[in-house]
Amino acid sequence: MATSSFSLPTPTHASAPAISNPISKPKKHLVMSSNDQNMQVITEPDPEPPARKLTGSSQLNRWSRARAIRSGRRLDRPVPWKPATDTNTISLVETEEGRILQEELGREVEDDKEAKPIYMVSDGTGWTAEHSVNAALGQFDHCLVDRGCPVNTHLFSGIDDVEKLVVIIKQAAREGAMLFYTLADPSMAASAKQACKLWGVPSTDILGPIIESISHHIGVSPSGIPRGAQGRKLHLTEEYFRRIEAIEFTIRQDDGALPRNLHKADLVLVGVSRTGKTPLSIYLAQMGYNVANIPIVLGVEMPRPLFEIASDKVFALTINPVILQAIRKARAKSLGFNDNTSSNYAEMAHVREELEFAGKLFAQNPVWPVIEVTGKAIEETAAIILRLYHDRKQQCSMPRISKRY
Amino acid sequence: MATSSFSLPTPTHASAPAISNPISKPKKHLVMSSNDQNMQVITEPDPEPPARKLTGSSQLNRWSRARAIRSGRRLDRPVPWKPATDTNTISLVETEEGRILQEELGREVEDDKEAKPIYMVSDGTGWTAEHSVNAALGQFDHCLVDRGCPVNTHLFSGIDDVEKLVVIIKQAAREGAMLFYTLADPSMAASAKQACKLWGVPSTDILGPIIESISHHIGVSPSGIPRGAQGRKLHLTEEYFRRIEAIEFTIRQDDGALPRNLHKADLVLVGVSRTGKTPLSIYLAQMGYNVANIPIVLGVEMPRPLFEIASDKVFALTINPVILQAIRKARAKSLGFNDNTSSNYAEMAHVREELEFAGKLFAQNPVWPVIEVTGKAIEETAAIILRLYHDRKQQCSMPRISKRY
Repeated sequence: MATSSFSLPTPTHASAPAISNPISKPKKHLVMSSNDQNMQVITEPDPEPPARKLTGSSQLNRWSRARAIRSGRRLDRPVPWKPATDTNTISLVETEEGRILQEELGREVEDDKEAKPIYMVSDGTGWTAEHSVNAALGQFDHCLVDRGCPVNTHLFSGIDDVEKLVVIIKQAAREGAMLFYTLADPSMAASAKQACKLWGVPSTDILGPIIESISHHIGVSPSGIPRGAQGRKLHLTEEYFRRIEAIEFTIRQDDGALPRNLHKADLVLVGVSRTGKTPLSIYLAQMGYNVANIPIVLGVEMPRPLFEIASDKVFALTINPVILQAIRKARAKSLGFNDNTSSNYAEMAHVREELEFAGKLFAQNPVWPVIEVTGKAIEETAAIILRLYHDRKQQCSMPRISKRY
Repeated sequence: MATSSFSLPTPTHASAPAISNPISKPKKHLVMSSNDQNMQVITEPDPEPPARKLTGSSQLNRWSRARAIRSGRRLDRPVPWKPATDTNTISLVETEEGRILQEELGREVEDDKEAKPIYMVSDGTGWTAEHSVNAALGQFDHCLVDRGCPVNTHLFSGIDDVEKLVVIIKQAAREGAMLFYTLADPSMAASAKQACKLWGVPSTDILGPIIESISHHIGVSPSGIPRGAQGRKLHLTEEYFRRIEAIEFTIRQDDGALPRNLHKADLVLVGVSRTGKTPLSIYLAQMGYNVANIPIVLGVEMPRPLFEIASDKVFALTINPVILQAIRKARAKSLGFNDNTSSNYAEMAHVREELEFAGKLFAQNPVWPVIEVTGKAIEETAAIILRLYHDRKQQCSMPRISKRY
């Protein structure tokens, strides 16, 4: 499972209305003191011990349980939602990856393990928790990929009062989940810590230690105001607009459009079809770079402006032909072409010939760095490109990407 | 300064080749033991104490120093690079924000403070460190925005050997920087910790505590292999392809294009020009959602398919007219229109009328949630939309976004 790529979330272990909530008035359990910094627990700990069992699981046989876990639905009721993208996703069944994937799905049934729940709570957007936990899970790829240690994450964002926080932590205790939190409000963070301790939920503060060390370094106290809260306003800076402009520029310049604008781009990506030019361009655009991408098509001349712009902003992408063919087959299928279509887009001979054509172009332009994208996530290729880009611009002894706040 | 938005990095304090490097053979200083887990420091601590002063700053007067800090360039030499986007960015000078910004820039000169450097080191892409530090800096908006506590961040990614690591940490000590690190390789993390301690650089491990608590929770040891390293291969899963397809779908459906495809979208955004539909769509697409956006234009009928699709996937965006006018003025200027252009795009009467037109449309479709985007970062609006979306789909007592690994 590619933890580096964001995926469409699947609903799992949806909290069931059937389970009676042990806390009818959670505010009675945790009360904030007047200075909002210290939490007092004024009642006894909830007598109900958290249980790790799944409701109703005993009624289900091994297979249907496994299926339920795989599909991510709750065991005791049908879930009305399924990812709505099925009309538009690539079916991999006919490809090499598809076969590998199917084998993995097969193994998964054998494993028949319950996924470990990880809760993430934020009083802001929750994207920092999401991003950090996703990156950390990358360290467990070796057992996530074959579902040897399945994990479900659950993000609760915009949690801005203790009442909701307590409900979530009790639910985490009941499910045997661990909890990560990013709570800007120090009283909320203290509540989370204390409540987790009380109900035996392992918890980790994601942003707290970072904020604390920055605070110490710059000698300023943090505001304690979550993003999006009243009183913390968004400052519309030039950077803010530049980022939006970069996204719009990059969309306009996608797939070789408007070559006359190439001189306005910060970065120009060239490569054959399905080397990931578009998602890579968009990823870089989100960081504020104006990106243009130009496809290399066998026998088609590249637009003249490409050779008139500064050559040090052009980056070439290349890929292993076997992987490229597999991706193209999947692509052709998703576009509705079957094997009988006259297109040679995904034929190995054509794939190789086109990559050779690209290789010759790269050889004629030795200034363009050639980046091998095989097996790399978009984020990795982006990191390599930006490192090279800033290295060239700064001529540093050690490439760095610097930013001013 | 909008810490929530990524911006084009500015090179600052580029390490000068002129400064003689005190470590000619850093490998002699830090040697890994055979099990690669424990670092031994086999020589004396470097006798050269780290100094916080900036080379050459005493030669410069107050103004040129301030200017240097603002522009982010080193004080002792010219930097060849400037952001290459100037041909394509919005000039805000003529807008309300522009005036505020100019005032801020004015204040900045008065402040004349040296920016505190923050170093980020990663053996992977570094995006987790970048994201987390950016989010944490949001807690210091109150003094970052007027440059009361200026900060420069420096990201060093792909640092995969101890030699480079040591060079960076010594440089951090010299500049009085603090250091954040995300080092998947435990021996690298141990080296960073020990070297920082040795040279008095305050340091914080960003991913370590998260990985450790997940490891404890799921009972599996982390791989210790950085993203992108040999031996950690990218798994091309359905999710991976779905995300790429979502980006491509979203680009195709931008700005009202191909309304016949609306039924294929997971999310449909409607709003007048400059409510941030495009960057929001792209942000959501990166998470794997197929997004379409349709502009609302005064007097223009919305495409019929909009009313034929499931109405619970449509989200309406609205904005304060004064802010909208300011943004549109900036936009018009960036597109090369001057005040004499006949367009009424940015005229207040027109702006109000168009927003009223949109408001009527929203009233006729009460199922569409109307989201106020004024003063919200793209990420915040995205969080609100996804919360509503998953709430509707899951019918939970507490909205959550769940994901399966």
